[in-house]
Amino acid sequence: MMKRNSKQYFSLPSIIGRGKGWVFCFLLTTFTVMAQEHKPFTLHDLIPGGETYHQCTPQNSSYTWWGDQCVKLDVDTLKVWNPAEKSQAKVLVQLDQVNKWLEAADKKPARSLQSVSFPYADKSWMLLQVSREYILLDWQTGKVEWTLPIAEKASNRDWNKTSRHLAYTVDNNLWITTAEGKNIQVTDEPEGIKCGVAVHRNEFGIETGTFWSACGQRLAFYRMDETMVSDYPQVDTDARTAEYNPDKYPMAGTASHKVTVGVYDIATGKTLYLKAGDPTDRYFSNIAWSPCGQYIYMMEHPREQNRAELVRYHALTGEKDAVLITETHEKYVEPMTPITFLPWDDTKFIYQSQQDGFNHLYLYNNKGEKLSQLTQGDWLVQQLVGFNQGRKEVIISTTEVSPLQSNLYAVSVKSGKRRPLGNSEGVHSVVLSASGDWMIDRYSAPQTPRRIEVVSVKTGKMIDTLLEAPDPWDGFNVPEITVGTLKAADGETDLYYRLVKPVDFDPTKKYPIVVYVYGGPHAQMIHNSWNYDVRGWDIYMAQKGYVVFTLDNRGSGNRGLEFENVTFRQLGVEEMKDQMQGVAFLQSLPYVDSNRLGVHGWSYGGFMTTNLMLTYPDVFKVGVAGGPVTDWKYYEVMYGERYMDTPQTNPEGYKNSSLLEKAGNLKGRLLVIHGGNDPVCVPQMTYSFIKACIDKGTHPDLFIYPGHGHNMTGRDRVHLHEHITRYFEDFLK
Amino acid sequence: MMKRNSKQYFSLPSIIGRGKGWVFCFLLTTFTVMAQEHKPFTLHDLIPGGETYHQCTPQNSSYTWWGDQCVKLDVDTLKVWNPAEKSQAKVLVQLDQVNKWLEAADKKPARSLQSVSFPYADKSWMLLQVSREYILLDWQTGKVEWTLPIAEKASNRDWNKTSRHLAYTVDNNLWITTAEGKNIQVTDEPEGIKCGVAVHRNEFGIETGTFWSACGQRLAFYRMDETMVSDYPQVDTDARTAEYNPDKYPMAGTASHKVTVGVYDIATGKTLYLKAGDPTDRYFSNIAWSPCGQYIYMMEHPREQNRAELVRYHALTGEKDAVLITETHEKYVEPMTPITFLPWDDTKFIYQSQQDGFNHLYLYNNKGEKLSQLTQGDWLVQQLVGFNQGRKEVIISTTEVSPLQSNLYAVSVKSGKRRPLGNSEGVHSVVLSASGDWMIDRYSAPQTPRRIEVVSVKTGKMIDTLLEAPDPWDGFNVPEITVGTLKAADGETDLYYRLVKPVDFDPTKKYPIVVYVYGGPHAQMIHNSWNYDVRGWDIYMAQKGYVVFTLDNRGSGNRGLEFENVTFRQLGVEEMKDQMQGVAFLQSLPYVDSNRLGVHGWSYGGFMTTNLMLTYPDVFKVGVAGGPVTDWKYYEVMYGERYMDTPQTNPEGYKNSSLLEKAGNLKGRLLVIHGGNDPVCVPQMTYSFIKACIDKGTHPDLFIYPGHGHNMTGRDRVHLHEHITRYFEDFLK
Repeated sequence: MMKRNSKQYFSLPSIIGRGKGWVFCFLLTTFTVMAQEHKPFTLHDLIPGGETYHQCTPQNSSYTWWGDQCVKLDVDTLKVWNPAEKSQAKVLVQLDQVNKWLEAADKKPARSLQSVSFPYADKSWMLLQVSREYILLDWQTGKVEWTLPIAEKASNRDWNKTSRHLAYTVDNNLWITTAEGKNIQVTDEPEGIKCGVAVHRNEFGIETGTFWSACGQRLAFYRMDETMVSDYPQVDTDARTAEYNPDKYPMAGTASHKVTVGVYDIATGKTLYLKAGDPTDRYFSNIAWSPCGQYIYMMEHPREQNRAELVRYHALTGEKDAVLITETHEKYVEPMTPITFLPWDDTKFIYQSQQDGFNHLYLYNNKGEKLSQLTQGDWLVQQLVGFNQGRKEVIISTTEVSPLQSNLYAVSVKSGKRRPLGNSEGVHSVVLSASGDWMIDRYSAPQTPRRIEVVSVKTGKMIDTLLEAPDPWDGFNVPEITVGTLKAADGETDLYYRLVKPVDFDPTKKYPIVVYVYGGPHAQMIHNSWNYDVRGWDIYMAQKGYVVFTLDNRGSGNRGLEFENVTFRQLGVEEMKDQMQGVAFLQSLPYVDSNRLGVHGWSYGGFMTTNLMLTYPDVFKVGVAGGPVTDWKYYEVMYGERYMDTPQTNPEGYKNSSLLEKAGNLKGRLLVIHGGNDPVCVPQMTYSFIKACIDKGTHPDLFIYPGHGHNMTGRDRVHLHEHITRYFEDFLK
Repeated sequence: MMKRNSKQYFSLPSIIGRGKGWVFCFLLTTFTVMAQEHKPFTLHDLIPGGETYHQCTPQNSSYTWWGDQCVKLDVDTLKVWNPAEKSQAKVLVQLDQVNKWLEAADKKPARSLQSVSFPYADKSWMLLQVSREYILLDWQTGKVEWTLPIAEKASNRDWNKTSRHLAYTVDNNLWITTAEGKNIQVTDEPEGIKCGVAVHRNEFGIETGTFWSACGQRLAFYRMDETMVSDYPQVDTDARTAEYNPDKYPMAGTASHKVTVGVYDIATGKTLYLKAGDPTDRYFSNIAWSPCGQYIYMMEHPREQNRAELVRYHALTGEKDAVLITETHEKYVEPMTPITFLPWDDTKFIYQSQQDGFNHLYLYNNKGEKLSQLTQGDWLVQQLVGFNQGRKEVIISTTEVSPLQSNLYAVSVKSGKRRPLGNSEGVHSVVLSASGDWMIDRYSAPQTPRRIEVVSVKTGKMIDTLLEAPDPWDGFNVPEITVGTLKAADGETDLYYRLVKPVDFDPTKKYPIVVYVYGGPHAQMIHNSWNYDVRGWDIYMAQKGYVVFTLDNRGSGNRGLEFENVTFRQLGVEEMKDQMQGVAFLQSLPYVDSNRLGVHGWSYGGFMTTNLMLTYPDVFKVGVAGGPVTDWKYYEVMYGERYMDTPQTNPEGYKNSSLLEKAGNLKGRLLVIHGGNDPVCVPQMTYSFIKACIDKGTHPDLFIYPGHGHNMTGRDRVHLHEHITRYFEDFLK
């Protein structure tokens, strides 16, 4: 990590100056001026993918747990430290030594130790992946204890540390390599049916398609039949002759895929499917095993998404055993987290629900009886991190301190009593040790770029600092960034905004403004993390003399169910009303030039940007909309129908939220940008909008990033922000 | 046709003014000012597809021949006039009467008489197409003499007036409906093989895929196997979910289609294929029947296009009979016109060739012996229009008067003596009467919007004026348009340019310039037609204060073989040198602001525009490139390899002409526009260029017209020109 500050600059001339007086003077002058005036940022400093981006990002380090001992993971060295003993960190092993052992065992060398893990608290074994092989290596004896080959083309790998079996997919089918190295083809489905992968387009918290029972002897998996789903015709224009690469994409109101859940039993070598009935227009989510591996629990919900049931199945027969919990809501129920059994009592589990308006924890027994509500309040549980078994506490992160934060708590499962853990500032992310007695706590706060600490769960106190990252923007001319609240259009709800003033701010001047907007569910743009989560591009624009403003409107994340679901069946309407509250606030500021108001956003924010340009054509002068939704009928079934129902059942809502219908309203300058192969908001979104504008005689601008998906990543992200910036400079400056 | 002039404006107040004095004065003032200042054009006036475009286009009328009698075709009335008798025009028949006859025969009514024809000089029969039926109606007796149903989905219809059989295609196969109404399926090929349609992507003058023998008893047809050709993945984004609509598109250097020629014989009901050998990488073009229907002639040329042979086949056996003529050229031979037999001697035919450097006529006998060169000189024959049988003359149009013109001549087949026919000004297009004694001569010249005259072929003189179109731009403020010549970069060749000065031109001012460029083979932008063929958009830009300049560089059409083939294997290089001669000329003009030089072109002109922007980045400030070729490897085999050979045999040439290689040079503002479904210059052209620019960190602008092909047609063409204009106004003004 390079550090640029005045100290460093001043130290330089005194060395160079020893022999050459004139050089001394020249350099001294130059560096002094730089230190006073600060360096300007480039987009490469501020945008992920930029050449100097890592130098302008807070320093980071990798840590993990071996049982209750903390391990620092570097490329060349592993260091270990026992917080219980408050010992000095000592070297566990070095890469050279590891590679000597591997060579002796006729294995290929490892390139780095940064991604090893320690699956067994009671064994001095590290898990390495070298070339196409898993290796368990004993760092005390130097012995390779176990290896497992990784099949060619294996994707979606899921390894169970108890049985050491490996599940994975090849093309559209599911395979297992057993701990002994035997390859089993679990499914043999034709193209169009996918097994062992995440389903329902990763909605409902689904991230994987395989689920090992705790002991690793049974594997539950998703099977998704997409043969009835429309192909979206993506085209690869980078081939010699452009090639057709269709994606299955179920659009709102059209035929959706059918999911079933299979269970493969290593002992019998047989697969059965849970007898859940006709899978047409149904969702199966949040799969969890009972600790014994006898039962599978999952959430079942109809395509309408207005009900969800926790259902238990016999894993050995596939028979339905019981419906334990049923939730309904006139708008939608969105289960996001599988149930979690208490580690010390396998008859009880924790269930998460927004049923009281905020996501909270509920304790149930396995008869489906609610025993208690473990948390409650006008804040929400963000994550169930784990348990402290000794104290019988569940460790969670919540928004209790502030909706902009994420702080840790230990909650007594018996009493519901809550204890704060670690620093009360900022946004925290933790990794618990095996016993749950310790946690590696990584956080940032507005003035804190990054800290990594070890916290004692017992006392709730930090016992050691592993990293205190210096400010990577030291020496740069950083604009003033403030966060505040204003009232939503309902006159009651507090909304958070972030305001970035131009660098070298002069209150007597009038500045152009860019509103950066997202506005959709689940996401939140403003946090009490470093610099309030300001975006690099905001800083760049502030440097170019713009005020940059962001407001998390109703409908966005971390504020509870009613804050979110006010947008139901009419996406965009309430969100825009709130954004106009933000505009009114901006217009009240003496240094803001309301005639030069721009707006920019991506995805849902691209929808919002275009919608604002077309709904308030006399307010917004310039907009840049990226990967926008332009009509919800082109969006997918799972997310889209949750908020909008179907085009058939909510024709008015679809029509009112369609930007195609408003294409004739365009007055200002609007640049629409789309990834040429966007699989999320398909390119049809933008092309149909452009066509609607042409039909109406209006003139948006357009840019396509060939080959890119929903976001421009890598070095092209810098190009994207050059392009966006140029557009505002062309037409808003 | 609406005519706007001062007379009309002055007549208005005197009527309105009768009762209301103050209205009178107000209107008088207003209209007087308008009359003096002239009306400004809108894009709707100037661009095809615009709402008022037809009002600003020279008036036109439809005429045809019934034998040697001239017929005027109107919606409601047919009028006939006999030039030999210099009679008064009289009504032949009216629509009402025609529809009464049709109703009596239980036929549906005709909507218009504008597209009837008169196939038989000796019969008072008109051919109508009403609903899905051909009808021969006798206008003297009112009797329906013959009808033929048109099959559903019939395309590419080809009717023979002698046999009255109708050939057509349904999907990819060829059918015939006989004069008696019997349906015959001629071919039964699977998808991927097309029969009865134009092949070789309409190069080599190919416009149709069926060829009736003179008596209409045998049908030659193309069969094209495209199964080995790459699919270009076109996408219809206007469907509910975007749909995949692939086109077969053989790109330079990749597998090309295979063509064979079939002959169906009505008498035997059998099809044979000409025994031309392996069709791999060969072209079969310029199909012609011997007058007796016993032989088929065609040009055969290898994929390399450096040789062409006129070959004769027995139509009854498919056997090759003789190779009559062979032409070779180290660059390319491009046969464009089938041989034409003399109507009075079926042992002799006229062959057209550029072998002496210009396209001229040669008389051959059917042994393949050259009898004479009928025309010669540093000008070229543009069209063989027909024959005057009485005088044994062939009627042709040529560039003899000027390369910018097309004038008619009668050439004695015996002596080669040439007589001019009709007016020596402008660009003429004629239709000969049955005997060839008369012609309907339609032409325009710089000061003549359009004239239609009847010319006696015998005297060469005009004998009657059918139409003298008034100036549709009368009353508008039309800029000064001039044509001149300057020297090409070779220092010798004269090149023609057209210069449009800004309206209300002030020689003391400095004006921005837009160079409009095409520059590719076959085409020519400047003609001695009305206003020198100025484009409507040129006028619009002149009105906005731009100088608009166009230069037909070497490589373009109508100037002979060497003028064209100087570009061989290095498209763009010589063309750009010549365009820079034009720029030097512009820079010499005192009223031109060389710092504000823009360039615009489409297709080959899009290639030229982009190439100029990237090759002379300090000369051109703003460019708009439409449907550009960006790399010849993405263009088709037939046209592309003629000029460039293949990427395998001319790697240097392809690399040097590739705009992808120059993408990093972009300095000015370049807008690239492409039709979303362009089947000619495929969208990959633009997307690969945009990607190359992104890779190099340069920033072109982009616009896509979803659903459009190689050109924007209809009302969207106005939108296109609004968009192009705005770009120059944004960045060049």
